[in-house]
Amino acid sequence: MKRLDTVAIVGVGLIGGSIGLALRERKLANRVIGIGWRRSSLQVAKRCGAVTSVTTNLAGGVAEAELVIVCTPVDLIAERVEEVARHCPAGTLITDAGSTKQQIVAGLDEALFAGDVRGVRFVGGHPIAGSERSGARHARADLFVDRPAIVTPVDGNRAKDIRAISEFWKALGSRVLTMSPARHDEVMASTSHLPHLVAAVLAGTLKADELPAVSSGFADTTRIAAGDVDLWQEILLSNKANVLNSLERFEKLLASLHKAIERGDAARITKILSDAKEKRDAVGS
Amino acid sequence: MKRLDTVAIVGVGLIGGSIGLALRERKLANRVIGIGWRRSSLQVAKRCGAVTSVTTNLAGGVAEAELVIVCTPVDLIAERVEEVARHCPAGTLITDAGSTKQQIVAGLDEALFAGDVRGVRFVGGHPIAGSERSGARHARADLFVDRPAIVTPVDGNRAKDIRAISEFWKALGSRVLTMSPARHDEVMASTSHLPHLVAAVLAGTLKADELPAVSSGFADTTRIAAGDVDLWQEILLSNKANVLNSLERFEKLLASLHKAIERGDAARITKILSDAKEKRDAVGS
Repeated sequence: MKRLDTVAIVGVGLIGGSIGLALRERKLANRVIGIGWRRSSLQVAKRCGAVTSVTTNLAGGVAEAELVIVCTPVDLIAERVEEVARHCPAGTLITDAGSTKQQIVAGLDEALFAGDVRGVRFVGGHPIAGSERSGARHARADLFVDRPAIVTPVDGNRAKDIRAISEFWKALGSRVLTMSPARHDEVMASTSHLPHLVAAVLAGTLKADELPAVSSGFADTTRIAAGDVDLWQEILLSNKANVLNSLERFEKLLASLHKAIERGDAARITKILSDAKEKRDAVGS
Repeated sequence: MKRLDTVAIVGVGLIGGSIGLALRERKLANRVIGIGWRRSSLQVAKRCGAVTSVTTNLAGGVAEAELVIVCTPVDLIAERVEEVARHCPAGTLITDAGSTKQQIVAGLDEALFAGDVRGVRFVGGHPIAGSERSGARHARADLFVDRPAIVTPVDGNRAKDIRAISEFWKALGSRVLTMSPARHDEVMASTSHLPHLVAAVLAGTLKADELPAVSSGFADTTRIAAGDVDLWQEILLSNKANVLNSLERFEKLLASLHKAIERGDAARITKILSDAKEKRDAVGS
């Protein structure tokens, strides 16, 4: 990725802030403009060095940007992208970091994919990185290193732009995967959204008087349940059909294990645990 | 805890090995005798310094022990404790590290609790520590530090012995909790056994082609599913009634979240995620 003069980040929370820090630390942009709605969040991003300047005025903030990354909550992304497209210079490339992709793509004017209006183009993306902590105060320049980043082109996108967004994530240290928005949402349902709701239900099942006895295993298994509630509520609903599909797969296997325990069927329990161990061993630490 | 001359550990895997390492590092025992059935495992324990000598002969191994800790798989503990009781010196204190407690207590001669035969007494225990890795090669002297250790006395036990086993775990760095075997098994079902089976089912739901896209959140949530399959199959069955109870509580909340997603009920989803976050936040990292 060649060094850019001006990059704008709309939404400077954990992800936006970490992109800013990484761009600055890797000297990939001369100026990083943080755009947001809460002055306090913008000040945090500025103080921790994630951005070089901040503004609450989106139109002014993107006026000179060559690249704009929209990192707002997922339900705001489509409208922010459209707003950026109206105010950025001709030829600007826009991407996002939203956790679900089909809803965003469906909400955008198709002219944005091929760049039919003033040469402004959008290619979607999603870094598979994060934390149960939110806010720019927890941003880290290495948040994306060795983590997957999924680029989600649609038919209308130009190959050159898909490559540019892929190069952007590679430059931040990510392993880039490319798939359609539909496939992305399907994969995320089982690798991210299902784990989140399962972890939440597990944490929710704990009784207060059992707290002193919890193990590090319980802490690991439920860690993501500490994540931002509003963000996750939006994700679960914006990917509803896929989440329900994955959940049904989970419930089916859970019912099978439930029955095996009930019947005292050691062989069946061993089979389910062995399959799970084999899959988990392939994930690595 | 006063320094002991001879301690015997029956079963020198991750837990037995870590107890040995901790006893030696903290200078709590002059001799630590490792007793096991596989010579290769015994040699690993010896090489990593967890024990000062090893033997496959249980009778000989416990012949001079003041304290014996039985760390075998849970389904072997009761018979090993009885065997230790027949061969150890008069007045020896025996404990264990089994993950479920009612079955063990039910399998023991009641004379062992108050020390009616040769003054040999048994008090059950369970360190809430471990790892998805097994074997003495992964043993760590600090495995129990700041971790709960549950001492599970029965009515027949003497206060002095309960105190001695509590002091033993404190000396290894644990936070000691005391509860009945029945209560222990109930608490473990929801804090440990349920998380294990949920993590296994979650890992089992993953499709091979989704593997490259997994997040650190998925890795955390499923980490314990890499644990020893035989050990966990035994635990789930030896605590069957409590495990099924906890599982039903989990399934009920899961069904409620399932329905809320289906109906697009954002308020209900938010409520379930918020409750879960509040409970998880209380757990700490």
